[in-house]
Amino acid sequence: MRIAIDAMGGDHAPGQIVKGALIAAREWPDTELVLVGNPEAIKAHIEGALPPNLIIHPALDVIEADDEPVRAVRRKKDASMVVAGRLLREGQADAMLSAGNTGALMTTGLLVVGRMEGIERPALAPVLPTLDNIGVLALDLGANMDAKPEHLAQYAIMGSIYREKVHGIQRPRVGLLNVGTEPGKGSELTKAAFELMERAPIHFIGNVESRDVMQRSCDVLVCDGFSGNILLKAMEGTAGAVMKELKDAFKSSLLTKLAAAIMMPGLKGLKNKMDYAQYGGAPLLGVNGLVVKCHGSSDAESVKNAVRQARLALQARLIPTLAAEIKGKEVSL
Amino acid sequence: MRIAIDAMGGDHAPGQIVKGALIAAREWPDTELVLVGNPEAIKAHIEGALPPNLIIHPALDVIEADDEPVRAVRRKKDASMVVAGRLLREGQADAMLSAGNTGALMTTGLLVVGRMEGIERPALAPVLPTLDNIGVLALDLGANMDAKPEHLAQYAIMGSIYREKVHGIQRPRVGLLNVGTEPGKGSELTKAAFELMERAPIHFIGNVESRDVMQRSCDVLVCDGFSGNILLKAMEGTAGAVMKELKDAFKSSLLTKLAAAIMMPGLKGLKNKMDYAQYGGAPLLGVNGLVVKCHGSSDAESVKNAVRQARLALQARLIPTLAAEIKGKEVSL
Repeated sequence: MRIAIDAMGGDHAPGQIVKGALIAAREWPDTELVLVGNPEAIKAHIEGALPPNLIIHPALDVIEADDEPVRAVRRKKDASMVVAGRLLREGQADAMLSAGNTGALMTTGLLVVGRMEGIERPALAPVLPTLDNIGVLALDLGANMDAKPEHLAQYAIMGSIYREKVHGIQRPRVGLLNVGTEPGKGSELTKAAFELMERAPIHFIGNVESRDVMQRSCDVLVCDGFSGNILLKAMEGTAGAVMKELKDAFKSSLLTKLAAAIMMPGLKGLKNKMDYAQYGGAPLLGVNGLVVKCHGSSDAESVKNAVRQARLALQARLIPTLAAEIKGKEVSL
Repeated sequence: MRIAIDAMGGDHAPGQIVKGALIAAREWPDTELVLVGNPEAIKAHIEGALPPNLIIHPALDVIEADDEPVRAVRRKKDASMVVAGRLLREGQADAMLSAGNTGALMTTGLLVVGRMEGIERPALAPVLPTLDNIGVLALDLGANMDAKPEHLAQYAIMGSIYREKVHGIQRPRVGLLNVGTEPGKGSELTKAAFELMERAPIHFIGNVESRDVMQRSCDVLVCDGFSGNILLKAMEGTAGAVMKELKDAFKSSLLTKLAAAIMMPGLKGLKNKMDYAQYGGAPLLGVNGLVVKCHGSSDAESVKNAVRQARLALQARLIPTLAAEIKGKEVSL
């Protein structure tokens, strides 16, 4: 199998991306990795010879973090992200990874790779951290701001298949993000989606509240892109703020510094639990190929994890399975 | 002034509600407090004579936490919450407080107290905790699941006036909860609301992300009831989960227990910052009278704080000011 990696996207590109690709190439000699980007910039981070399964594919332009997504993807035809998408569409790669501009990657998925038949809106599906370190696959996390009930039902089916095929969870519990657990709660959107999800070929466990996500109250969390973004960033912001306050409290005197030294291992474990990078990248589900979004702050370790995840998805034949399931099981009001 | 208190609503009713009313009655002898509920049940928590400014108003029925709101308010005409609402509507009280069923209290506000002229949808406006202990007034937090842009613009105006009049913040910074800070971000709802808020008589600072709320990135946070609920519960859930993990880490050995003892004062401060009760109750803005929702788990201290807040609002003539401002400044697309 062959995975195209956008070497130029992300806060620590190309250095950490290239480093992660090198580690992954050595770990999985059966997998070809294609680093897409400026060859000079990429080579500057490689010492010695390239591993035989690591290829550089030139692409001289770059989509920047603040580029307007649709315009950038349309105009920058030689941007590393767009070129990687083209490799995927043309069958020269089986998957693509990027830590670059999220909006541009979703646009690349839609316009370059193409939408999967039967899917109205692709969804971005990262794993949210949970206290048991297993995580919750949540979708959509920002690909579509204005979802319809049918979209949510499709997210549910796609997320369920992904969770089973790639993460190995049998009969994943699918929950609907809502303001209360009782049926009948919520907005017009969630009320209608609830009914569709009850009839979908999934293990639907009903409504789930945002306060219980960290307890892994479900395996797949379905939400519209707007609410999902609010949830994700509220979790990030609150965890970050609490950890920062804690750090300040530990720094306040010699005695508390001693306490900090004692607590170091426990705190490190807690910090890791809140760390998104450990869960690898987020697939963009509903496009005609495996597109994985890595966190913008991805380091080499995250890139390697994303490659691991892409391999699992390819081995499990995720995309053909999704396409077949979606085609066969249309859900509508 | 006279404040009606639903003595029977809340997890710790009537005990903690009565206790809080007693403390408040002694602290503010100029304020009459009317405890509405079962006289026997109320008196069981009062030792000795009633303070002269504390009155018991009988109401023999109770709205339970799991009652269906609209039906309960319509049928249970002698429920403590409904009777308190009636006292407010009939001018026998200037404000009402309740820690009972949130949906029922909103229904009481709408059906018993009545909607304010010019307001389409009343909004529930609690204060979200921030690291500087000042908090952010957020609205709507669950009164309306399906908001229109005009509703959000009205929330913005009402929240801004409340923040200024009751909390004494001059020119409060009003932010719109959204998925990114740039204008043009978000759903159809937030995009349209953004335009209306730019033209509203408020100090609008633009979009605010959920991750920055705890840093008090604005003084008034405007959102639809669905997103607001997701935000609030995500913050609660994440802070609670992190604190619990921390507690477990502190308990793991004798040495970490020593560390816990050292850190106790700092941790207590952190826990207080996350505590909603310290910020008092949440006003239901947009009804014809001051209706304050206290947290379901309110203790005597929270009840006293809610009375303090209601006094400030009454002294500042909040309701007449709101009515005048809303009437004069209609905002529409």
